[in-house]
Amino acid sequence: MNILFIMYDQLRFDYLSCAGHPHLETPNFDRVAAMGVRFTNAFCQSPICGSSRMSFYTGRYASSHGAQWNGFPLRVGEQTLGDHLRAVGMDAWLIGKTHMKADADGMARLGLAPDSVIGARQAECGFDVWVRDDGLWGEGPDGFYDEKRSPYNEYLKSKGYDGHNPWADFANAGIEDGEKASGWMFENADKPANIREEDSETPWLTSETLRFIAEAKGPWCAHVSYIKPHWPYIVPAPYHAMYGANHVLAASRHEAERADPHPVFDAFMSNKIATAFQQEDVRQKVIPAYMGLIKQCDDQLGRILDELERSGQLGQTMIVLTSDHGDYLGDHWLGEKDLFHNPSVKIPMIVYDPREPANATRGTTCDALVEAIDLAPTFLDFAGGDIPDHILEGRSLHPWLHGETTEWRSYVISEYDYSVTPMRDVVGVTNRDARLFMVFDGRYKLIHAEGGFRPMLFDLKNDPEEFHDLAKSDSYTDVIARLYDHLSAWGRRMSQRVTRSDAEINAMHGRSARRGIMPFLKDGSEVPPELTEKYRGPVAQDYVSKTGQDADDQ
Amino acid sequence: MNILFIMYDQLRFDYLSCAGHPHLETPNFDRVAAMGVRFTNAFCQSPICGSSRMSFYTGRYASSHGAQWNGFPLRVGEQTLGDHLRAVGMDAWLIGKTHMKADADGMARLGLAPDSVIGARQAECGFDVWVRDDGLWGEGPDGFYDEKRSPYNEYLKSKGYDGHNPWADFANAGIEDGEKASGWMFENADKPANIREEDSETPWLTSETLRFIAEAKGPWCAHVSYIKPHWPYIVPAPYHAMYGANHVLAASRHEAERADPHPVFDAFMSNKIATAFQQEDVRQKVIPAYMGLIKQCDDQLGRILDELERSGQLGQTMIVLTSDHGDYLGDHWLGEKDLFHNPSVKIPMIVYDPREPANATRGTTCDALVEAIDLAPTFLDFAGGDIPDHILEGRSLHPWLHGETTEWRSYVISEYDYSVTPMRDVVGVTNRDARLFMVFDGRYKLIHAEGGFRPMLFDLKNDPEEFHDLAKSDSYTDVIARLYDHLSAWGRRMSQRVTRSDAEINAMHGRSARRGIMPFLKDGSEVPPELTEKYRGPVAQDYVSKTGQDADDQ
Repeated sequence: MNILFIMYDQLRFDYLSCAGHPHLETPNFDRVAAMGVRFTNAFCQSPICGSSRMSFYTGRYASSHGAQWNGFPLRVGEQTLGDHLRAVGMDAWLIGKTHMKADADGMARLGLAPDSVIGARQAECGFDVWVRDDGLWGEGPDGFYDEKRSPYNEYLKSKGYDGHNPWADFANAGIEDGEKASGWMFENADKPANIREEDSETPWLTSETLRFIAEAKGPWCAHVSYIKPHWPYIVPAPYHAMYGANHVLAASRHEAERADPHPVFDAFMSNKIATAFQQEDVRQKVIPAYMGLIKQCDDQLGRILDELERSGQLGQTMIVLTSDHGDYLGDHWLGEKDLFHNPSVKIPMIVYDPREPANATRGTTCDALVEAIDLAPTFLDFAGGDIPDHILEGRSLHPWLHGETTEWRSYVISEYDYSVTPMRDVVGVTNRDARLFMVFDGRYKLIHAEGGFRPMLFDLKNDPEEFHDLAKSDSYTDVIARLYDHLSAWGRRMSQRVTRSDAEINAMHGRSARRGIMPFLKDGSEVPPELTEKYRGPVAQDYVSKTGQDADDQ
Repeated sequence: MNILFIMYDQLRFDYLSCAGHPHLETPNFDRVAAMGVRFTNAFCQSPICGSSRMSFYTGRYASSHGAQWNGFPLRVGEQTLGDHLRAVGMDAWLIGKTHMKADADGMARLGLAPDSVIGARQAECGFDVWVRDDGLWGEGPDGFYDEKRSPYNEYLKSKGYDGHNPWADFANAGIEDGEKASGWMFENADKPANIREEDSETPWLTSETLRFIAEAKGPWCAHVSYIKPHWPYIVPAPYHAMYGANHVLAASRHEAERADPHPVFDAFMSNKIATAFQQEDVRQKVIPAYMGLIKQCDDQLGRILDELERSGQLGQTMIVLTSDHGDYLGDHWLGEKDLFHNPSVKIPMIVYDPREPANATRGTTCDALVEAIDLAPTFLDFAGGDIPDHILEGRSLHPWLHGETTEWRSYVISEYDYSVTPMRDVVGVTNRDARLFMVFDGRYKLIHAEGGFRPMLFDLKNDPEEFHDLAKSDSYTDVIARLYDHLSAWGRRMSQRVTRSDAEINAMHGRSARRGIMPFLKDGSEVPPELTEKYRGPVAQDYVSKTGQDADDQ
């Protein structure tokens, strides 16, 4: 049995036909949904690539693993999916992006060489690397592509795309009058990328995946991690022209959101990407490209599914389709992700379990409150391992996959650290206070901001588009208090007792006495004599009589 | 400049003459208090040896370092005082006890050999070991002493104390009619230990300390960590006979405590050690021995102070006297530690800073709310290092030592995990819910118990002995809510972002743009042209014209 853990970057939960998008047909996503369960209330642990992914890969909340933003290294020794799966005999491979930054200082402190097997896994988030490419090879004055190797860029060069950084010059740029038309500029989003479609990022990674599937010895878990449909928003032909302004849904936004907004929301609504997406011409250029990128992902998913079917592996492969977070695309007056409205924090989560007990649920949806951290224990469960719930904070989805009922969490948590962003200074908080927490109980969504601000509150039953911040009024103090109680309980969660399992704690009971540590004996009759026998018996030498004095000597 | 960080085990804050004990004269503790500052509101992070010590040594709360009980290994890679001090050129040495358990699984996972320098420090809580002995060499059927080396036992054997475990047979046993009279039995607490006084644990460790001081090259921080006055309660002559029943203070307890007690308090009041200490004959035998052990500690402290003075090192040595927690000794119907009444959770904390700015405060007391985790940053500050406050959760005590005013914390936190104790089953909670949290704001002390219980609340202004649990009534909901707000804020603290300092975060600002990562450009005019120049320019090859199709082709 193998696991194909496919992640798309910045894919909204609702940009799939199985999730109801009216214009975007994604038959291959739908095909997996028809074989498995589509979770309709799945949330990322942090609406930002790096932090969210570290939660997927560790099965732990962002505040627990500590890598709370892009480029914050995952601390050395933090256990990953790879550690847990390898312990039960399953390999963990990376094909694509992780956005993981190694804890080079921590590795040096522990003397771990990056080129050793252990060091390499520490540096790659626990995965063995089939191919890693994080994309986003910027060409700024500080370099970035220069610092790292890009297998995709090497591939492009081997295919004759010349120049220093063909990722930027071809895969993510169009052409206009013989000049580069960079995908970094929204005005170029409607141009076809200047690349043969089969050489663009998504088909390239798919080919790497097919090569892996053909060559790998199982059991394996392969993390196939696409860089798309993440920006730059530009896609090769024919996808660039499949969708147009007539397919762009109206922005989900409301003037009420701009009236007395929460200061953090206000700051984000005023940032550069938000103001760009507030312009309708930007949306009409970008969203068709975004949809084209997803359509390309769907077609490439079809290649993988066809190959699994052809080779007879479909019946022995768990398939998961998900993303690290969504994309506002102008909804709520915002662009990018970062905050906690559903277009950003809610993620697609489709799980196909090939085993017989899952027959009961094929093609169904499940609205349980699911978190990204649930996948790691789900995979470990699938691999036949016991779940170390003193380390993994998520829960196996098996009950839902098998049509069982189970006691389940009553709220989900997501977090965001904006200390690295310009909004820290706009809001006027310290790095430590530039942190947000979301608590959602299935109906109400509370957002707490450190720094002494009021919270935000939305009632998704009566206001599913999350336009009306109820925390502005005084009528919801009970709801707010209840959600804050959830947040407090979560804050006190046991997240760092990672060196002692419940079973080990249970085994410790009574051990002190068995070791002869008994600080409660009046005369020894309190315990069986065998526990104290070594403390009795004759003494050869009386040191007291040699050296002792009594109180009268003082 | 050096640091002498002296810890006594289970020493109550109020069993010193400088702290007002009416019968116990401790002139050497008082001598340090007269040279320095005695902190009268200092608290341990967990009233249990191992967990408290891991907080001292990491500068982090128990929930942050995760070693929440004795024998829970400190996770590999968790940074310690030794890591921080060595980074600024100061050695960190251990002389005595740490109660640290190495994370052997984690070390194996990272390939760290216990006999390498890095591995040894990982296994010894960051210290280089001058001598380590944790004491408590039990002789039960499961062994314990057998598993480990005890330098103190080796010393005793070299001195002619025969038998397998002379720690148990001589240092911690008396003699009666030629038979061992074990110190594990309270009925023997009034006997002199069957050992020459100079060979007992406290003088032995003092001699090791003097040997270290004579030989060590500075700058150093030496953690001199005595096993006493921790049980077994037995002391060699002449200390065994210095105090008698007439010196035993009445137990600080009240019938009101047994009326409708909190279920967790109730369970602890019913445990074996509590019921033993509820018997007056036990107190009258044990407490004089406990006082004798402290008196011996004081005399041995005098040896160290005299030597520092004689050798001219007193003026260049910071001296700290503290303990890991207290001892109920029958107060509140309890024995041992574990809960949060002051006899257990409050600790002695005397700090002598030899430098000139501390002249203003010599011989004074300070009632600021101090936590055990404040020592690590205090030492690092003294050693001239910047304090990495993304790792260390305590704060340097320098302002208080130098007579400055400073904004300070408004509450202290202590925690206790009782999952390993029999009280877990008496209370009837899971391992995860067998956890307690104390919040004390200088007047009110709230104790929260996981598992759905009401809290406990004490008003130390009107009820300094903490007899009356105000949470039984409904009159303190505002106070309780306020303290719960503190606990919630603390629960959301940023404790695991240990790989990124504030300075590094500040340096990250603007870096994406400098790297050429700009997801907000409409046409490039938004940023200086040098940031986008590489994205412009002529293209040699037009792949679009080769492969492109437009929408009409579909």
